[in-house]
Amino acid sequence: MKFEHYFDYENNIKEKEAYFNILQEYESKEIGYYHLPETSQRFLNTDFSDIEYEEVIVIGIGGSSLGTKAIYEMIKDETTKPMFFLENPDPRDIKDKLSKIKNPLIFVISKSGKTIETISIFKKVINHFNLKPNSSHLKIITDENSPLDKFASSWNLDVFHIPKNVGGRFSVLSAVGIVPLLAAGIYPKNLLLGAKEFRDDFFNKKEWHLCKKAAFYAENYKKYPINVLFAYSTLLNSFKEWFVQLFGESLGKDGKEIMPVGHIGSIDQHSFLQLLMEGMGRKTITFIKINSFETPLIIPDIKLPHLEATDFVNGRSFEELINKECEATREALLAKEYPIDEIVIDDLSLKNIGKLIMYYEMLTSAIGSLLEINTYNQPGVELGKTILRNKF
Amino acid sequence: MKFEHYFDYENNIKEKEAYFNILQEYESKEIGYYHLPETSQRFLNTDFSDIEYEEVIVIGIGGSSLGTKAIYEMIKDETTKPMFFLENPDPRDIKDKLSKIKNPLIFVISKSGKTIETISIFKKVINHFNLKPNSSHLKIITDENSPLDKFASSWNLDVFHIPKNVGGRFSVLSAVGIVPLLAAGIYPKNLLLGAKEFRDDFFNKKEWHLCKKAAFYAENYKKYPINVLFAYSTLLNSFKEWFVQLFGESLGKDGKEIMPVGHIGSIDQHSFLQLLMEGMGRKTITFIKINSFETPLIIPDIKLPHLEATDFVNGRSFEELINKECEATREALLAKEYPIDEIVIDDLSLKNIGKLIMYYEMLTSAIGSLLEINTYNQPGVELGKTILRNKF
Repeated sequence: MKFEHYFDYENNIKEKEAYFNILQEYESKEIGYYHLPETSQRFLNTDFSDIEYEEVIVIGIGGSSLGTKAIYEMIKDETTKPMFFLENPDPRDIKDKLSKIKNPLIFVISKSGKTIETISIFKKVINHFNLKPNSSHLKIITDENSPLDKFASSWNLDVFHIPKNVGGRFSVLSAVGIVPLLAAGIYPKNLLLGAKEFRDDFFNKKEWHLCKKAAFYAENYKKYPINVLFAYSTLLNSFKEWFVQLFGESLGKDGKEIMPVGHIGSIDQHSFLQLLMEGMGRKTITFIKINSFETPLIIPDIKLPHLEATDFVNGRSFEELINKECEATREALLAKEYPIDEIVIDDLSLKNIGKLIMYYEMLTSAIGSLLEINTYNQPGVELGKTILRNKF
Repeated sequence: MKFEHYFDYENNIKEKEAYFNILQEYESKEIGYYHLPETSQRFLNTDFSDIEYEEVIVIGIGGSSLGTKAIYEMIKDETTKPMFFLENPDPRDIKDKLSKIKNPLIFVISKSGKTIETISIFKKVINHFNLKPNSSHLKIITDENSPLDKFASSWNLDVFHIPKNVGGRFSVLSAVGIVPLLAAGIYPKNLLLGAKEFRDDFFNKKEWHLCKKAAFYAENYKKYPINVLFAYSTLLNSFKEWFVQLFGESLGKDGKEIMPVGHIGSIDQHSFLQLLMEGMGRKTITFIKINSFETPLIIPDIKLPHLEATDFVNGRSFEELINKECEATREALLAKEYPIDEIVIDDLSLKNIGKLIMYYEMLTSAIGSLLEINTYNQPGVELGKTILRNKF
């Protein structure tokens, strides 16, 4: 994985501050996600082979579903079981999905153990599949001693705990992601390995670019209050949603923000590029490019009458086309003097996905520490919850 | 459909300017989309009943796919044929989708008739399904005399033309949307009717709120350069993408912009609300709420041990829950003094969808005219195309 910066910046003091801030978080074990590559090892032996099921359901919202969905979409193939994410209390969405599911293994995931959307959908699912105490088809993932954890005990269900010091949006490498992925037939050992490698390389000062980017973003958040992620693959669609939550909830507080915006290339060149090229600027832009899609697919060398102007791609691969589109867009935007960086991934292996996840989590921590905000809380969402409660 | 504004604003001169600007566009017939409710009538008789097919493929990108996909996702049910959108030159996405398709009716859609992504994917599809001249399974939608139009003649294929004065992102009510929807089993007569009704009501000065919103947005684009759409239903996922293209490509130019951001409630309360509540402001926020989902789905009255705190929604419908979440979030954000408006839709009927589409298109035109930009072009995307061409 390569991290290229297309902007000049140097501020040794701020860069070192970023480094030592997160080193402190890591070493003090105050913040748990850094340690998930080790603490999640114990879940790798989880065995669902004595349960008969055809689909995997994840009931969860936000940090309890986005990361798992992101990884699933990048990795799924003919051998993985279908996964369904019941994440919104939208009646048609719930009905549509339930109608497609026959014999599921069900994960109910909520860190707090009392998320109203999750528990409401769970009740519907209990009803729909006639679930009972002791069910082997029902698993709980939550914090120790949460209401959901206590419920699980009373129903005698298997529970997988999330470490207390791992926030929801930083929890994809905990049981939250690891266990449902295993159930879908994805063995996430290399996901943890990749995350560990990136973390260790970083603390061994081999990934200094992260400190530079964090320092640049934090120092310039008023000039560049928006970060646009332009990911060149449809497979990264949920990954960009995960990124939006990670940045948005972590870095929008105390009157400061770096607002994340996710787009997919080349599709969104046809929707968002115009505004980037000729609008008001104020954005940093990050590209993600996948070098190899592991699926060589060639644009056939067919010459169609009157369409000769498109023949320049004949015989080339779609991989080459989408990646050259990425490069061309980057060059066009560089001409507009945006601070741009690019993450180049060799292929979408679990190891590389693990690296990418740890990179983004540590980047978020580093930026948050330099903005002098609490990266890990989300006090702003409480008011809406109180208002909601009073409406019933 | 109701349009509620939760901000005070009055500027008679600007509001009237908005009204007369788009009235002029409409009456001069300079801009074509206003007239699609009439000019698209002729497609309603299109009959595919003599063709045997199981799926519908749309090969198109941006304005050639987003609107159709948005409507399809809102309307599809057990009776509609599966639609596949081949919109990205992503090899794994193309392979995945093609592997699920057996006997399709195929629409190749490109306004310019030379979109490189679309024609490249088309070549792959020709190869994959062994398509030949005269094929009844292959239909073309493009501008008259475009390269793709000429190709269609040479292959003796059915062609449906897009009016020259209808831009890609304003084309969903042209053949671009109407014909593939018909093929999928969705009869879009009421879509056109709803669009016509909104347009006529507007020009009869019964929808003056649009002028007010346009004037407010245009006058305050520096103070509020971002518009966040918070749509409360998973079914509006592609609609928000359509909105992002419509606003983004139309209103991002000449150093001005109103940047569109799309979010889905209640999911994104768990990802983006924190930043809205405690970040830097600078945003207008629009809610879309659907009064009736036509699928009453009740949260079962199940009391689970230790989860009693969630029982306040027992026996209520998911519809009520998601809509009260919408209201609660709106109220919480109003406390932060955002300029907020809300679009309340009775139900997702084709007629209401037609209204919503025409509303957003006319709103875009009105804002663009007040910003004194050319709402309908996209000069900024050309540089990237030139750079791309030179990479091969």
